[in-house]
Amino acid sequence: MKLLLISNSTNAGEAYLAWPQTYIKDFCNRHQIKKVLFIPYAGVNLAPEGLEASYNLYESKVAGVFASLGLELTSIHRYDDPVAAVREAECVATGGGNTFHLVAMLHQYGLMKAIRERALDGMPYMGWSAGSNVACPSLRTTNDMPIYQPESFDCMNLIPFQINPHYLDANPDGHAGETREQRLEEFLAINREITVVGLREACLLEVEGTRLDLKGSRNLRIFRYGKPAEEVSPGTDLNYLLK
Amino acid sequence: MKLLLISNSTNAGEAYLAWPQTYIKDFCNRHQIKKVLFIPYAGVNLAPEGLEASYNLYESKVAGVFASLGLELTSIHRYDDPVAAVREAECVATGGGNTFHLVAMLHQYGLMKAIRERALDGMPYMGWSAGSNVACPSLRTTNDMPIYQPESFDCMNLIPFQINPHYLDANPDGHAGETREQRLEEFLAINREITVVGLREACLLEVEGTRLDLKGSRNLRIFRYGKPAEEVSPGTDLNYLLK
Repeated sequence: MKLLLISNSTNAGEAYLAWPQTYIKDFCNRHQIKKVLFIPYAGVNLAPEGLEASYNLYESKVAGVFASLGLELTSIHRYDDPVAAVREAECVATGGGNTFHLVAMLHQYGLMKAIRERALDGMPYMGWSAGSNVACPSLRTTNDMPIYQPESFDCMNLIPFQINPHYLDANPDGHAGETREQRLEEFLAINREITVVGLREACLLEVEGTRLDLKGSRNLRIFRYGKPAEEVSPGTDLNYLLK
Repeated sequence: MKLLLISNSTNAGEAYLAWPQTYIKDFCNRHQIKKVLFIPYAGVNLAPEGLEASYNLYESKVAGVFASLGLELTSIHRYDDPVAAVREAECVATGGGNTFHLVAMLHQYGLMKAIRERALDGMPYMGWSAGSNVACPSLRTTNDMPIYQPESFDCMNLIPFQINPHYLDANPDGHAGETREQRLEEFLAINREITVVGLREACLLEVEGTRLDLKGSRNLRIFRYGKPAEEVSPGTDLNYLLK
């Protein structure tokens, strides 16, 4: 498998998709990708006119960045037969936004299975934020609001652990709601057998066959039921997480 | 109907259930409540031994506070027939924690319907955090992580609008994930007909028949599709939200 699983599109104060650009370019060059099929379904409100307009705007926003990297990008919502589009794609890229709406549409259009099959067969897959969540066994570690009920929480299961993107250490001062770590501890109490990795902003995970690398400027925080959370830095051997 | 819908059990740095105590006491006195039936299912990890131990600990934590207010409290997990326990209850109180697990258990045990029927029939209901979410049409504006898939996102629908408890204005500095307002705008893009109220910590909503009051020390933030968000202060007439 060839996966690029990015925590966040954009760091605070930076241009859209600025920080992961070099990683996206390297990933596509290495895998000889020229054309990318984009999945826009997490983008529910980029345009006030509705979903179609939102997908159009999302496509043009991402296509602009990808064009600057020498990559052609088309959104799947342009195709009459989205499953066929996935079957013929060189690479699929799934954008961030609302994970629940994304997962609902992927199930509804038969794409969860179609993308999974192609990715298991070696097609490069990349995603950021919600697009990284859907590579996991389920959406159960998304941070997003459940604005829409998907037919199932199950996702592509391309990796055997859960990613929590935009991993965040603290609440704003004086706020008493659960911290991210407390939320993940609740997850583990109910899902004891699954490992969760807290992927901080400006970080990504890259999978190449049996190899798993953390790239970016921050540590990864690994959570397992009944064990203290563990901090690992970029460069640490993480291959065991794929087993 | 008689509802007390509390944003949060505990303010940062304060004792458990400290701030809403006087409101809980007034509510129970006014409605001549002596015994409260507690719903603990949102509390998934208070004890490391598992759910049963967690519910026991949650019950004793809340019962301690309620005893100091002259109220007897028993958790529903003690009853062989939880639906019968609801049918006979003077008042139901639902504690905070994980909304997804709470909603799943309420559906699984037939309690979503049973509590709804009693509340519509005049039984006083109170909840905090997740316990306020479940009084709404659905769980779609919870902040919680979807650690468990409920059979449906539908909730009790005791009020015709959605509460977002622990409403929070800003992200921590330097964090680029969606703000709460951005999440609620995503909700409204997909659910255009429903009003959402952002209920800040140290605030609650009280329903008494056709009357809706905001109590506490902060404003309420009201969100409607296609309209600017509106700030209203305690004392404002909110009855129209119940129509």
